[in-house]
Amino acid sequence: MAETDKPSASTGEFDRISKYFRPLVKDAPGALNLADDAAVFAVPDGHELVVTLDTLVEGVHFIGDEPADLLARKALRVNLSDLAAMGATPLGYFLSLSLPKRIEDAWIELFCKGLTADQGAFDWHLLGGDSTSTPGPISLSITALGTVRKGQALKRSGAQVGDALYVSGGIGDGYLGLLAAKGQLPYGPEADAMLARYRCPEPRTRLGQALVGRAHAVMDVSDGLVGDLAHICAASGVGAVIHAPSVPLSPDAAELVADQPSLYLELLTGGDDYELLITGPGQAIEDAAQASGIRVTRIGEIVQGDRVMVLDADGEELTFAYAGFRHS
Amino acid sequence: MAETDKPSASTGEFDRISKYFRPLVKDAPGALNLADDAAVFAVPDGHELVVTLDTLVEGVHFIGDEPADLLARKALRVNLSDLAAMGATPLGYFLSLSLPKRIEDAWIELFCKGLTADQGAFDWHLLGGDSTSTPGPISLSITALGTVRKGQALKRSGAQVGDALYVSGGIGDGYLGLLAAKGQLPYGPEADAMLARYRCPEPRTRLGQALVGRAHAVMDVSDGLVGDLAHICAASGVGAVIHAPSVPLSPDAAELVADQPSLYLELLTGGDDYELLITGPGQAIEDAAQASGIRVTRIGEIVQGDRVMVLDADGEELTFAYAGFRHS
Repeated sequence: MAETDKPSASTGEFDRISKYFRPLVKDAPGALNLADDAAVFAVPDGHELVVTLDTLVEGVHFIGDEPADLLARKALRVNLSDLAAMGATPLGYFLSLSLPKRIEDAWIELFCKGLTADQGAFDWHLLGGDSTSTPGPISLSITALGTVRKGQALKRSGAQVGDALYVSGGIGDGYLGLLAAKGQLPYGPEADAMLARYRCPEPRTRLGQALVGRAHAVMDVSDGLVGDLAHICAASGVGAVIHAPSVPLSPDAAELVADQPSLYLELLTGGDDYELLITGPGQAIEDAAQASGIRVTRIGEIVQGDRVMVLDADGEELTFAYAGFRHS
Repeated sequence: MAETDKPSASTGEFDRISKYFRPLVKDAPGALNLADDAAVFAVPDGHELVVTLDTLVEGVHFIGDEPADLLARKALRVNLSDLAAMGATPLGYFLSLSLPKRIEDAWIELFCKGLTADQGAFDWHLLGGDSTSTPGPISLSITALGTVRKGQALKRSGAQVGDALYVSGGIGDGYLGLLAAKGQLPYGPEADAMLARYRCPEPRTRLGQALVGRAHAVMDVSDGLVGDLAHICAASGVGAVIHAPSVPLSPDAAELVADQPSLYLELLTGGDDYELLITGPGQAIEDAAQASGIRVTRIGEIVQGDRVMVLDADGEELTFAYAGFRHS
């Protein structure tokens, strides 16, 4: 772990690393106890490395009033979701944390508590990183490493005409959670549930692993169901049809949409779901769902073409003001 | 490569990734053309992965008026220096780039030109990353990956009593370059040379590789010669002696110190040299230097004890107001 300078409002950088971050690596020998210039570790024989990076900036990706433990967990989880979409098993992560001087040790303590919780939940560890001060907003960047059997990583480019199209869990909670965070949902238990889901999404790690060797194409829904499916279509050279009434909502989201039907189309293009979008043989995908204990729902199919069509209950095509994507 | 939002003053994020960043990965199949959720690649049989991360924040680690190509190269090079200190061969890197809206495409173009130059110079490639906007200063974070033969990574903890102590290249150019950047050096060709070295340090990649199997302990000098040697001593449970008159300066640095002798002690504790500090059998270290074509100089030895002693020409111990470190 590099130590570059000392935020003045709190413990010096050396003490900070020792006190807060070193306990996070205790079971990860490759991290060399954060005492060397770099981490060193092996990738198991017959496996490849899967690496993804996501950066969260205060005022852009989060508001700033979030509890620090939830912020830490969200940062880990959006990366875990990317690993899940590749079918990878989490190995470890690197953390870059830039903090303004106003941040106190109590915040860091809570942040590390969040990291610890999701290290346990997903059986991985901090491997190294960098902690700096900044004159700007809080910024954190996670580089997440996972492993997958050689040549077996799930990709966006494998969709085939005739594939069934599935999505895990429920769509829309993340988008509704963002509205709740902005105070744009009526207060109540449903809004609270959406907010909790937005702040701490559920990466589909076990499902991703179970889809290895079964699915043709997988990605996680971070920019919106329709837009992300368009990415799969572009990468695979195919088109897709979504049957809108089949798209699963959580009970809480369904409740909210019942009160505000205009929300429904927004959910199909809203982001932050972190569910897996899956194409392949229907039976194989349902087998993976059963093996992992995570619900999947068939929402459409892969067809010839180069775009995503969303059909309503009458088979009429729905159009969207903002689809969360551009064809390229 | 994730695309999270669109800085308004310039090309949309999708075009930006496509136009500027995609060409940087063209020879790196593991990057999946930046079109997937993560990069996937193999580590060669019999090798381990070495990973390091460094973050540079405008106003903390750089001033902000640097040419963008040099900033990009420095970001790569401080990470390459960490890889060199482990004896690793560079494999590829992930980039997290957070830019304020004032940044124009011309800046990004120049930044990528710098990345391209040092991809060629060090035979590695962009593997993925994240590009975001920020209401704060420019921030960039590099996660650098390298490989080393299993069990052969150079570490800080291997120093043994009786080891010779060497340093590569010359000490002090980085510190003097920082003074030059702050306008605290007399203008002239020496100051220009120091500034150039500070802005674009020379990672000792080939030397690091040649030291594998030869050196006992290695680290790169980023926080200052004396302070960084103290890290080796703490990790190895030994002491060290530096003979100050043996510490090599570049001709330009020697010229500047001749005019301002008080600078000399500052150079021994100043940072940003990115030279390698090496302990081990003298002959083996000199063999590695010859094999890599990089000069090394013997500056002292490893002794029993738990601290670093710096001796002047008369064998008197020098003391430092700021040693760039704290014993822990």
